[in-house]
Amino acid sequence: MTTSRKILWVRAFPEPHSLNGSLRSAGIDKLVGMDHQVVTSPLYEMGWNPVVTGDGIVPPGTRFNATTDSRQAYLEGRLPHDVSAEQEKIRAADAIVVQFPLWWYGLPAILKGWIDRVFISGFAFGKNPDTGKRLRFEQGPFRGKRVLVVMTLGDRERAIGPRGKSGELHELLFGLLHGTFAYTGMDVIDPVAFPSADFTDSQSYYLAEKRLGRRLSHLFDAEPIPYRPQFQGDYTAEWDLEPDVRPNETGLSVHVMTTEELGR
Amino acid sequence: MTTSRKILWVRAFPEPHSLNGSLRSAGIDKLVGMDHQVVTSPLYEMGWNPVVTGDGIVPPGTRFNATTDSRQAYLEGRLPHDVSAEQEKIRAADAIVVQFPLWWYGLPAILKGWIDRVFISGFAFGKNPDTGKRLRFEQGPFRGKRVLVVMTLGDRERAIGPRGKSGELHELLFGLLHGTFAYTGMDVIDPVAFPSADFTDSQSYYLAEKRLGRRLSHLFDAEPIPYRPQFQGDYTAEWDLEPDVRPNETGLSVHVMTTEELGR
Repeated sequence: MTTSRKILWVRAFPEPHSLNGSLRSAGIDKLVGMDHQVVTSPLYEMGWNPVVTGDGIVPPGTRFNATTDSRQAYLEGRLPHDVSAEQEKIRAADAIVVQFPLWWYGLPAILKGWIDRVFISGFAFGKNPDTGKRLRFEQGPFRGKRVLVVMTLGDRERAIGPRGKSGELHELLFGLLHGTFAYTGMDVIDPVAFPSADFTDSQSYYLAEKRLGRRLSHLFDAEPIPYRPQFQGDYTAEWDLEPDVRPNETGLSVHVMTTEELGR
Repeated sequence: MTTSRKILWVRAFPEPHSLNGSLRSAGIDKLVGMDHQVVTSPLYEMGWNPVVTGDGIVPPGTRFNATTDSRQAYLEGRLPHDVSAEQEKIRAADAIVVQFPLWWYGLPAILKGWIDRVFISGFAFGKNPDTGKRLRFEQGPFRGKRVLVVMTLGDRERAIGPRGKSGELHELLFGLLHGTFAYTGMDVIDPVAFPSADFTDSQSYYLAEKRLGRRLSHLFDAEPIPYRPQFQGDYTAEWDLEPDVRPNETGLSVHVMTTEELGR
C-alpha cells in the first residue's frame, strides 16, 4: 500500500524517440501505476525560454551597485506567467524528477535556464525579513520535498565511478545536487545514471527500465544523501568548515556526513 | 615586449552596467593595451540561441538506436551560420576568456548553450576516422589554445576555498574546466573569481580590476592546471584510474598531477 503523492517530472531532451523518451514513458507509467499523480514540464515541447533577462528575473550576485529586483517581482506577483506556473507546480509537488542527457558534464541549457529563471529569491531561498533567518538547506523553503535526477550519458560506467576520469558522479554534479537542490531544502536522492547511452540495445534497455522502476518505487523511502547541516555549528561565519570537523580534509566529500558522524 | 595574439572574449551577463560589465571593459582595455587583438562574443547582445534542437546539432549520447547527425552536418558545412561563425572565432583564437556570473553554481543557460551548440563532434572532439585515434585531452583539436574563466559570485571567498561550503572552486567547476575545456585539448588557466559580488564598492572594485589585469598579463605564460594525461597509461580501458596511480585515493583531485608526479 503506497500513499498517493504528487510528482513533478521535468524533462529536457530534444528527441522524443530517444533513450530518454523511452525511459520517460516507462517511468511515468511506473509512478501512475503506484497511484501517484504526475504533472510534467516537458521543456522542449513547452518551448521553454531559458534566458534570464533584465525583465525582473535577475538572480542575485550579478550587479555592481544595483539592486536585485527578481525577489521584488516575485513578492508583488509580477513574474512572467511561464515562471509563476512552474513555481506553482513545484509548490504542489511532493517530489520532483529531473530527467536529462548529460551534455558537457552538465545540464542542457534549456534545463539550466529552468533553474535560473524559476528558482529565485523569495521562492527557492532567501532570508526571513523579520528574523533575518537564512532560508536555505535545512531551513530552506522546499523542506519535505524530494528530488531525483535521472540522466543518460555517453561515458562508460566506471568513468563516473570513485576514480573515474570524468569525476565521480556526486562530485561532478555537486553544484546541482548540493548547491542547487539541497540549497533549497530538498532531500536529494542518489541519482540514477545510464552510462554508455549510445550503445543501448534492447537487452540493456530492458535492464535500464527495470532499474529505473526499482529506483522510482523507492522515491519516498530511500535515504537522501546526508549532506552536512549548515546551521548546526559545522561551518564558520565565513562559510567554510570549522577546523575540528573532518580536520585537515579537503575535497567535496567533506560536505557529506560519514556513517560514523550519522551514528548509524 | 609581448607578442600580439588573438583572443576571443565570450561573455554572458544581462546587465551591461553590472560588475561584470565594468570588469569586461577593464579587461579588454588591458589586453588591447598589450597589443593583442580581441574579438568578442557578447551572447546577450547577440541574442544567442542556447537551445540544441533536432536540426542537426544534437550532441552525442542522447539517443536510443538513432545516429548522431551533428558531426555529419559539421563535416558537410550544413551547420547554422551562428554556430559556424562561433567555430571560426574559436579556430582563430590563441586564447579564450569566458566571463560570467556564477548562477546556481554553474553557467548561465545562454553560455551553457553556447558550448552545447558550438562544441560538436568533429570540431571540438572526435575520433580520427582513419586511425581511430581519440581526439581529446592532450590529443584534442584545441591543443595550443588557452582558456581563462573570469567569474563573479555571491558567495564569500572562503565558501569556494579548500573546505568551503559551496565546494572548492576547481572541483565545483570540474565539468567545465576538465570535462569541457581540457577535453578539447585547451590549456586551462586557474580561474579568476570575484566573490561577494553583491557587496562590491568602489574600493573593492579597484582591487578587483587590478587583480584581473595582473591575471590577464600572464594569460600566455601562466602554468596551466596540470590535469593528468589521458593516453599515457594512467587510465584503464574502462576510463578510471589504474590501481597503481594514487592508490586508493578518490575525489576529483586525483585527476590533477601532484608536484611530485610532475617532477618539479
